[in-house]
Amino acid sequence: MKKILLLGAGRSSSSLIKYLLDNANNQQWLVTICDVSIESAQSKCGSNPAGRPVKFDVNDAAQREYEVQQADLIISLLPPHLHHLVAVDCVRFKKHFLTASYLSDEIKSLDADAKEAGIILLNECGLDPGIDHMSAMQVIDNIHAKGGELTTFKSYTGGLVAPESNDNPWGYKISWNPRNVILAGQGTARYIRNGEYKFIPYNRIFTEIETIVVDGMGSFDGYANRDSLAYRHHYGIDTIPTLLRGTLRHAGYCRAWDVFVKLGLTDDSYHLENSEELTYASIVKSFLPAASIKKTLPESVAHMCGLPVEGEAMTKVIWTGIFEDVKTGIKNASPAMILQHLLEQKWKLQADDKDMIVMQHQFEYVLNGSNHQIISSLIVKGDDQTYTAMAKTVGLPLGITAKLVLEGKIKLTGVCIPVMREIYEPVLAELALAGIVFEEKES
Amino acid sequence: MKKILLLGAGRSSSSLIKYLLDNANNQQWLVTICDVSIESAQSKCGSNPAGRPVKFDVNDAAQREYEVQQADLIISLLPPHLHHLVAVDCVRFKKHFLTASYLSDEIKSLDADAKEAGIILLNECGLDPGIDHMSAMQVIDNIHAKGGELTTFKSYTGGLVAPESNDNPWGYKISWNPRNVILAGQGTARYIRNGEYKFIPYNRIFTEIETIVVDGMGSFDGYANRDSLAYRHHYGIDTIPTLLRGTLRHAGYCRAWDVFVKLGLTDDSYHLENSEELTYASIVKSFLPAASIKKTLPESVAHMCGLPVEGEAMTKVIWTGIFEDVKTGIKNASPAMILQHLLEQKWKLQADDKDMIVMQHQFEYVLNGSNHQIISSLIVKGDDQTYTAMAKTVGLPLGITAKLVLEGKIKLTGVCIPVMREIYEPVLAELALAGIVFEEKES
Repeated sequence: MKKILLLGAGRSSSSLIKYLLDNANNQQWLVTICDVSIESAQSKCGSNPAGRPVKFDVNDAAQREYEVQQADLIISLLPPHLHHLVAVDCVRFKKHFLTASYLSDEIKSLDADAKEAGIILLNECGLDPGIDHMSAMQVIDNIHAKGGELTTFKSYTGGLVAPESNDNPWGYKISWNPRNVILAGQGTARYIRNGEYKFIPYNRIFTEIETIVVDGMGSFDGYANRDSLAYRHHYGIDTIPTLLRGTLRHAGYCRAWDVFVKLGLTDDSYHLENSEELTYASIVKSFLPAASIKKTLPESVAHMCGLPVEGEAMTKVIWTGIFEDVKTGIKNASPAMILQHLLEQKWKLQADDKDMIVMQHQFEYVLNGSNHQIISSLIVKGDDQTYTAMAKTVGLPLGITAKLVLEGKIKLTGVCIPVMREIYEPVLAELALAGIVFEEKES
Repeated sequence: MKKILLLGAGRSSSSLIKYLLDNANNQQWLVTICDVSIESAQSKCGSNPAGRPVKFDVNDAAQREYEVQQADLIISLLPPHLHHLVAVDCVRFKKHFLTASYLSDEIKSLDADAKEAGIILLNECGLDPGIDHMSAMQVIDNIHAKGGELTTFKSYTGGLVAPESNDNPWGYKISWNPRNVILAGQGTARYIRNGEYKFIPYNRIFTEIETIVVDGMGSFDGYANRDSLAYRHHYGIDTIPTLLRGTLRHAGYCRAWDVFVKLGLTDDSYHLENSEELTYASIVKSFLPAASIKKTLPESVAHMCGLPVEGEAMTKVIWTGIFEDVKTGIKNASPAMILQHLLEQKWKLQADDKDMIVMQHQFEYVLNGSNHQIISSLIVKGDDQTYTAMAKTVGLPLGITAKLVLEGKIKLTGVCIPVMREIYEPVLAELALAGIVFEEKES
């Protein structure tokens, strides 16, 4: 009997928990499911005897240590800043530890101790980061194995709504952390092109976009992520001339989103006085320069942005309700919080809606003096509101990796991200069985 | 014999130290001048027997407490985050405390204790904040005293170069903290106009400017400061319909500065790899979108910004040397640090240069049913590189206030900023004797 401890049974845990419980009988697992809400833990366990729901407070050191000691492997879906607390216990009690979050410096510093303890602290093992690392490294290692020289790597991911559930002009609904949707692009994007650094500041990030075509899905906007440069090191491609990571949105989204940026509505650095009493329209008006005031609010905003008021971008913006005389109703809110509040209502996934993950890697390499290109694309749709594409693609890599670690098929120790063949090969193989599979086109 | 303790004898302390030593004989003062650099303290004291230079480490609690206990009044020109350390000692040993820095929440929390101790903790007693408070409150109190209702208050300040020392197309040289010059305008400006909140995000702050005319000095650009709203409370004008505080630059400066903003060169949130080896030209190129690449770098930037390359704004930008193939030479630097490094050389006040402070308050009020306007303007020029306008306008209000407190003419206790008549009236009167005097025009 192996014991798995899962910390956090929130919305994105559904597919992971299903995988763990579905495999529990066969694998002889006991799965302890911890959450601050016992109801949440219980409902996720259902009546499966392999599941043990526990009301859990990560800051209760005694409980945390007790549960870690009982387990063979811990998976943390807690908020990222809490992972370190748990990881320290895992090192102390010699238990494996997996997360889908970005590797932090704090966890990185545990590497030697984890190796000494003979355990793995595996991070970035979800979708993005996670499946992106694994699928990219498989192609990169194959190119290198046959003697090719990688010259370009671009990778884009989007958490979107499936076309059959799309009923708004943005082609977007919120399937993950809404705050990140609002604050996306803040800071300066850094990447490398033809051996030269390229930077895009926030004021231009949603206008300097690329068009990404995904077979069977049409065109998307791709905007650059904040830091692509770090991936040269992660992927062992330190001298690659062109490397860019970006985010996908439906075509036309970025031009419209830029209206909010230009207005200043994505600023999260200060709170508006009496924000609950202000209407969306009055807030927009507060951001308008006197020189742009026209007959109507949409005309004024269109003028400020140099856009036709009847055009696609302004149609999207008008659709959100941002020009309506409706009180926000939220207290002590920043502009970004107010915009989030509005869009969470407008971009809500409905009961019958399906979300969709789209990922595309573009590789260019030189082999025997000739140029080659590989386009590798992944499309995953959610089954329903519970088993969303997001939950599947974040949860299954964790579940599969947990199984491989407990079976002794992954023997790595220390702090890792899943860029080694020992991890990505078996994980991608089992993901493919679950329908999470890249389509590769070589030319 | 009264004892004054001055902490910090850096560049901006010259006029304050001169004032204290000039008055020492008459007032029977001993002035202890503390600095981390004993040479700095000694050179400021000169051979004046009333001056006592001390090598001082504010983090050495024993020394700090000893010096505070010896003194009757402490003036801190230390970096703002260190004031609190000293203020706590001042409360404990019942010593008056003055600074020119913005009042912090930490110091605010000492109010009851300071009153109990019978001492004043006076903050914001320099130029801006300082002279701005005093001069504005004098006019506001006068308007209120005669039954007027204030409807508009706008206030602009600029630390500039005197016209006779201006030899560059920006009309600007650096006379204070250069880092603040580079980062100016970041965050969103908030003010109130005709009873409505107005907000300007960073991406528009240098284009949505006002033209401010100062008699005898011509036109200036005025851009809005980050938070004007707090001043309603400070000045007891909570229901004023129009309130704006801003910064002055020579006409045309803002349009040119906006080129740096649009490029992304004012970002201080990340460091460039190998920044010391990069040339200014290559960095600019890194920020250019592919769609804007023209024959030359200035043409490309002009195109991106929608400006004529021969125009005034681009002429200013070209003059800085930002398009030149010269290595930055500074390691591990952010774009903002690189821009600062360049402009500190280009905008350096030379040995014979004079700096200049310009401040203008605009008041509108209703009295007996008719509208009135008061324009109150201050121009102060530096004597030389030591007794700069900045040093005079920051230092003299502190020195004069110290004298008034020690003479018992200011009897206030607790945490204050200089908005009370008891402070501003005698201070402004003595500032006028030193040539720091507002010219008032009423219409």
